[in-house]
Amino acid sequence: MSCVRVELGERSYPIHIGSGLLRRAGLLTPYLADRRVLVVTNETLAPLYLEQVLAILEEASPQVLILPDGEEYKTLQVAAQIFDALLKSRFGRDSALVALGGGVIGDITGFAAACYQRGVPYVQIPTTLLAQVDSSVGGKTGVNHPRGKNMIGAFHQPICVVADTDTLGTLKDREFHSGIAEIIKYGLIRDADFFRWLEDSLDSLLERNSAVLAYAIRRSCEVKADVVGADEREAGIRALLNLGHTFGHAIETGLGYGRWLHGEAVGAGICVAGHLSARLGRLADSDSVRIDALVARAGLPVKLPAELTEQQMLELMSVDKKARRGCMQLVLLNSIGSAALTDDFSVEALMGVLHSNRLAE
Amino acid sequence: MSCVRVELGERSYPIHIGSGLLRRAGLLTPYLADRRVLVVTNETLAPLYLEQVLAILEEASPQVLILPDGEEYKTLQVAAQIFDALLKSRFGRDSALVALGGGVIGDITGFAAACYQRGVPYVQIPTTLLAQVDSSVGGKTGVNHPRGKNMIGAFHQPICVVADTDTLGTLKDREFHSGIAEIIKYGLIRDADFFRWLEDSLDSLLERNSAVLAYAIRRSCEVKADVVGADEREAGIRALLNLGHTFGHAIETGLGYGRWLHGEAVGAGICVAGHLSARLGRLADSDSVRIDALVARAGLPVKLPAELTEQQMLELMSVDKKARRGCMQLVLLNSIGSAALTDDFSVEALMGVLHSNRLAE
Repeated sequence: MSCVRVELGERSYPIHIGSGLLRRAGLLTPYLADRRVLVVTNETLAPLYLEQVLAILEEASPQVLILPDGEEYKTLQVAAQIFDALLKSRFGRDSALVALGGGVIGDITGFAAACYQRGVPYVQIPTTLLAQVDSSVGGKTGVNHPRGKNMIGAFHQPICVVADTDTLGTLKDREFHSGIAEIIKYGLIRDADFFRWLEDSLDSLLERNSAVLAYAIRRSCEVKADVVGADEREAGIRALLNLGHTFGHAIETGLGYGRWLHGEAVGAGICVAGHLSARLGRLADSDSVRIDALVARAGLPVKLPAELTEQQMLELMSVDKKARRGCMQLVLLNSIGSAALTDDFSVEALMGVLHSNRLAE
Repeated sequence: MSCVRVELGERSYPIHIGSGLLRRAGLLTPYLADRRVLVVTNETLAPLYLEQVLAILEEASPQVLILPDGEEYKTLQVAAQIFDALLKSRFGRDSALVALGGGVIGDITGFAAACYQRGVPYVQIPTTLLAQVDSSVGGKTGVNHPRGKNMIGAFHQPICVVADTDTLGTLKDREFHSGIAEIIKYGLIRDADFFRWLEDSLDSLLERNSAVLAYAIRRSCEVKADVVGADEREAGIRALLNLGHTFGHAIETGLGYGRWLHGEAVGAGICVAGHLSARLGRLADSDSVRIDALVARAGLPVKLPAELTEQQMLELMSVDKKARRGCMQLVLLNSIGSAALTDDFSVEALMGVLHSNRLAE
């Protein structure tokens, strides 16, 4: 087991990473002592891991809420089901939530924890690669709105993250590939060596080699912990973690939540951000080619969906949280390993890239 | 105009109190410069004050959302209407909300501001006595759940509070009396002199004498600012502001939101807290009598509603946010001017007081 710490003063917390963590009795005891616990999971994961989690939480005699599975259920209405369950069982401020699942379960449970009685603690037990390397860390919680991803939410840090790499064994390939998009992102925005390591190690990663996987997860969590520790509420550097996400969120919202997985949309978004960076002369063309190649090898789309015209993409992108005074901002690349948030691009250049990077209809 | 400051480091803000503030052009300009503004109000207040508020916000060319009027609309579903309005007009993180109204509008708008894109600023323009002396100050935001008052919410401080005392001229007596409950509360928990001043000045206050009213509002805001500055997130002393509220919230939830006004429920709650304190030997019987007398003179109920049995009250009170490990805590009085949060009372004593302080059926 390795441990990465997110340093945020009194809100600091550990990310435990390793094999067999969900069989380690007592791991969560220090975090949940004397609290009433509600475990929130979904109908796909409950048969796989709920029993183990209930076993390690035995002392807390937790209650359980099982939600439907899918991005299309990450809504305010489904969050309300968590409030209903908590109030029906008269959970007080001395309660804690445990999110057992992927990004959807983590985001919605974290948001419910942020709002229940104006804030109770929660633990993240991410079971997908994407959640282990990204969404479970950093305290961004929220739900989607029909007009935009994650538009309703809160910054609310977990008290502990437990990433048991054994849970990745049961992941479908499509889900597994989706997580790799975020791993590639960390290399691109901050760590050229890690990007090169990914180019070298991708085949082993795709085979789910446990040592390679463990390193990829740990390095991703280190980069994220570093960025979040420096800028918890996204006043500056944290925005760089959104490389590819303005494009990606537009794809997810435009196609309808759940059609493309989050990591698939981010994969294409990263490639398009690379192409725009190259067109603007910020990034070498050869680096844009390397990005496309790595994303494609990871089994992810490199082009935007044919169903969305460039005009639709532009409109969807304009409601992004990084927009300022109606002016869109994007994370672009200066090189592999270095990114910047900027509004220094013309709509024409953006539209050109949106046009030339669509899948053929 | 007088100004009370809530001191919370970088989240500090002013409470402007006085006559004619809603005609003072430029008062809000420093707070809202360069922001897109949505004014949230209700159908009762819009005809009275919206024009004035739009005039002082002219530079921001604000948009407006008008909600239905009443505690029964302080729900997650109505908060969702605010999100819909913001997203329909593509408001970004550079937006700000303005809450023009009483406690319901302030609480729900503040909650929407806390959650929209994970937090945007908001201004409180309270138009009821209760909102001016209590709910607009301190950053407690939220909505009700059918099973409990304010169960879903956030701590999110406003950037400015503007309490124009002219708006109190149009308040119905019942609304005005409701605000006095919270004013009495401040004297009881922290300022015996203020309580005595209220005993002496209540007739002038009820006549809405402007000097008496201005002092009552300022002193209330000073006490609240002091307590909130010392304990923003209610880890300790702030809980004392809930004197009478565990009883009061149970009444509001039990009868259905909107039947009794918040201040009416708190008025009766304060009296019952006094009776319980006296029965336990903490408070002199004569002081409990003084409390009942002042609450009654303020036109507020001193007894619990006949429709709720003591068993129902007990159940409703047990979901209160101050409960710990299923164990109820109450704010009780040691004297007029001194309160404490305690679980040092028997259920029998509580039930006895709930029984003997019900209105006759």
